[in-house]
Amino acid sequence: MKKKIIYKYIGKVLIAFSLLMILPIIVCLIYQENVIPFILPLILCFSFGLLLNSIKVESQTLYAKDGFIIVALSWIIVSLIGALPFYIAKVSTYTEGFFEAVSALTTTGASIFKDVNILSKGILFWRSYMHFIGGMGVLTFVMAVIPLSKNDKSLHVLNAEMPGNSVDKIVPNTKKTLMYLYLIYLSLAILEVIFLLLGKVSLFESILISMSTISTGGLTFLNDSIASFSTYIKLIVALFMFLSGVNFNIYLLFLLKKKEAIFKSEELKVYIVLAIVSIIFVFLNIFKIIGVKEAIVSSIFHVSSIMTSTGFSSGDINVYPTCVKILLLFLMLISACAGSTCGGFKISRLILCYKRIKRDLLKIIHPNSIHVITYEGKRVDDSLIDSNSTFLFLYALLIILILLLVSFDGFSFEVTLNAVFSTFANTGLCFEVSNFSIFSDFSKVVLSIGMLFGRLEIFPLIVLFSDLKK
Amino acid sequence: MKKKIIYKYIGKVLIAFSLLMILPIIVCLIYQENVIPFILPLILCFSFGLLLNSIKVESQTLYAKDGFIIVALSWIIVSLIGALPFYIAKVSTYTEGFFEAVSALTTTGASIFKDVNILSKGILFWRSYMHFIGGMGVLTFVMAVIPLSKNDKSLHVLNAEMPGNSVDKIVPNTKKTLMYLYLIYLSLAILEVIFLLLGKVSLFESILISMSTISTGGLTFLNDSIASFSTYIKLIVALFMFLSGVNFNIYLLFLLKKKEAIFKSEELKVYIVLAIVSIIFVFLNIFKIIGVKEAIVSSIFHVSSIMTSTGFSSGDINVYPTCVKILLLFLMLISACAGSTCGGFKISRLILCYKRIKRDLLKIIHPNSIHVITYEGKRVDDSLIDSNSTFLFLYALLIILILLLVSFDGFSFEVTLNAVFSTFANTGLCFEVSNFSIFSDFSKVVLSIGMLFGRLEIFPLIVLFSDLKK
Repeated sequence: MKKKIIYKYIGKVLIAFSLLMILPIIVCLIYQENVIPFILPLILCFSFGLLLNSIKVESQTLYAKDGFIIVALSWIIVSLIGALPFYIAKVSTYTEGFFEAVSALTTTGASIFKDVNILSKGILFWRSYMHFIGGMGVLTFVMAVIPLSKNDKSLHVLNAEMPGNSVDKIVPNTKKTLMYLYLIYLSLAILEVIFLLLGKVSLFESILISMSTISTGGLTFLNDSIASFSTYIKLIVALFMFLSGVNFNIYLLFLLKKKEAIFKSEELKVYIVLAIVSIIFVFLNIFKIIGVKEAIVSSIFHVSSIMTSTGFSSGDINVYPTCVKILLLFLMLISACAGSTCGGFKISRLILCYKRIKRDLLKIIHPNSIHVITYEGKRVDDSLIDSNSTFLFLYALLIILILLLVSFDGFSFEVTLNAVFSTFANTGLCFEVSNFSIFSDFSKVVLSIGMLFGRLEIFPLIVLFSDLKK
Repeated sequence: MKKKIIYKYIGKVLIAFSLLMILPIIVCLIYQENVIPFILPLILCFSFGLLLNSIKVESQTLYAKDGFIIVALSWIIVSLIGALPFYIAKVSTYTEGFFEAVSALTTTGASIFKDVNILSKGILFWRSYMHFIGGMGVLTFVMAVIPLSKNDKSLHVLNAEMPGNSVDKIVPNTKKTLMYLYLIYLSLAILEVIFLLLGKVSLFESILISMSTISTGGLTFLNDSIASFSTYIKLIVALFMFLSGVNFNIYLLFLLKKKEAIFKSEELKVYIVLAIVSIIFVFLNIFKIIGVKEAIVSSIFHVSSIMTSTGFSSGDINVYPTCVKILLLFLMLISACAGSTCGGFKISRLILCYKRIKRDLLKIIHPNSIHVITYEGKRVDDSLIDSNSTFLFLYALLIILILLLVSFDGFSFEVTLNAVFSTFANTGLCFEVSNFSIFSDFSKVVLSIGMLFGRLEIFPLIVLFSDLKK
């Protein structure tokens, strides 16, 4: 990491992040709460950012590798700063605060707080707000607002941060694309706030729920998540969770009135079919346990919550039979569409895996014919298929490694597995574990790193670590 | 499946299998037991075999696809016949007998018998003997003994049945290679019998243990597996389990005095290192629970047993801490070397996965340089890397599917997961489950199919099913 441009980029990220901290300070002022937990980190973050940004850079060249390093380092530093308000407000240790910040920024939604009622409005706002910032990415925000000299330069950073396969060039200008994506993101959030207000939720709570929904985060201001709200609210939240799991390019195509392209989307079709089949499966297996009415709401809500890696809960999921738990764990690992705010493996990758298997089997059956893989109507490059496979290997290996490290805490196999899956896939909702304070500090750090690996889709952190080793 | 040659091949398999049934009949005669349970299936199998073998075949051409279908069908039919002695002897239902036969032939070693003391010597022999037949493959045996007109024809069948990547042409003649492999197989078995006799185990019991060890099967004639034997016996069995996990080509190279090739084997090195590291890890985590002396034997024995997918047990494994259980489950899925009698994913595939990940990461860091994957000193063809990836996808998907199907039985997540892993990886040793009679008939059939998928490394059965669909 000899490159000064990397530090300069991180400087810009820190300045942007410090400015974003003004909003929770306003919340504190409105509710007459202590602003110190936010003022101190803001000053620290801003000065550090200014310092790095003042570095004189000769070469502006940015390679793919640099993009990965910038993204990985930015997320780690921002998480370290995001932990400070919890620590300064004395609601957690610094390690726990780090876990909470990573969980919030990666839109996981796993919490170390046994009782969130003790938290101030400012801190509650901070958790959902970090969801909202992390949902779209820390760097996309910077890119959307700062002037860019060349597009190709920034694309490396974007590709390293955006979930799923690389950003589609629907709109030729990268910056314009980002602006559109932010517009969609904000519009969805505002729309949900309006629907929640209609259901008689207060403005503050509506904003918090909405930020946690659209970012597919899942942290809330109540110990029982969404369970105490009305059926109307539960269904509204379920709907917006589902909408947040859609590839944002679909909304962009909608805005650009390219409807035929929407209908052509294989990922969208699979997403909808998988959701419907899963809801029916869950319903059929739980209605005898919790009653028909409750089962309808629960199946829709929890499939939506887990598929989109949000992690809100509308009731007790531990009473579900094993087959439902296994299906939900499976959905957790897959998650929803690429280009959404979700975690997990992504449906697009699953489709490519399936097509790859099909092609290889056809090769065995008809060795002399030629088989081309197409996706969303276009021919898929072999290198994408390859990187997809590598991703799956790494995904599996990391899960096993994290499982092994967390297992030293001595919890049962089921608890360990659920906790690891739930954090690595950035879901946060976890069978058998209601909050993560039960784990050791070591495991909290391991799970935090797992959440970062999951959110950044593995490669950036590996490139960073292999670079640090040199 | 219009091809008559497929049926003809299966006919040959059935004739061979019926002749192999003479041995348990001799055992019954020695111990003055009822021979009907073996005579009836023998006659059925032999006549059916003769009938199929008498089919007039015009074309002798055999494609890769046909090889897969022959292997898949042979294994299913042989399992159906192997179940008959249990059923006729009235020690199990037919479904349970099918599970036991599949478990024995696939060298899994999972049993539906709660108490094996009720079984006759003939039946006990039949279980270990099926291990021994299945270990080297049902078809390799046929190929080794019947006259072959062309080598290329039979290679398709061999490739479909042999574990790991395709058969190495160390010896130019296929048939000669098979003869050598059988020689090694038998020599190892005889050697183990001698060592067991020295440990004062009876001849009958020595033969049974040896057949179950060298085939990496795991079924025994005692309810507590190997636990009641002396430390000497346990260590001998552990040693031979470990030896059976080595790629048989290594022994062939040894016989051909090509020692430099042995030292070059990457797979062998990884196998040995992984075993040693795992033994140390297990020992360090269990010696406080079961005492130092017991921990030494237990760690060596169980790592050896699980890595080679044998599934013998030398004591209670349920007392192990979660971290040991997770490591052992991981070892179970990987298993040992390709070209051995083991189940699982195989170390060679793991090495290729690792090299693939490394290459793809290097591509990101140094995009302009060229990276070639080599394995065992040779350049690896891209198609092998590809089929390796497809195998991993299918491996993961099948495990999830089987998990979901077995979970309908309503057992806990841990029990379901352990049972599925243990059968799919052909291990048979299972945490929390001492015998498989607890599962429903539906699950027994699903797990049986899973064992066949695991043993035949997925592709043959998928090719068969896709062919049947037509």
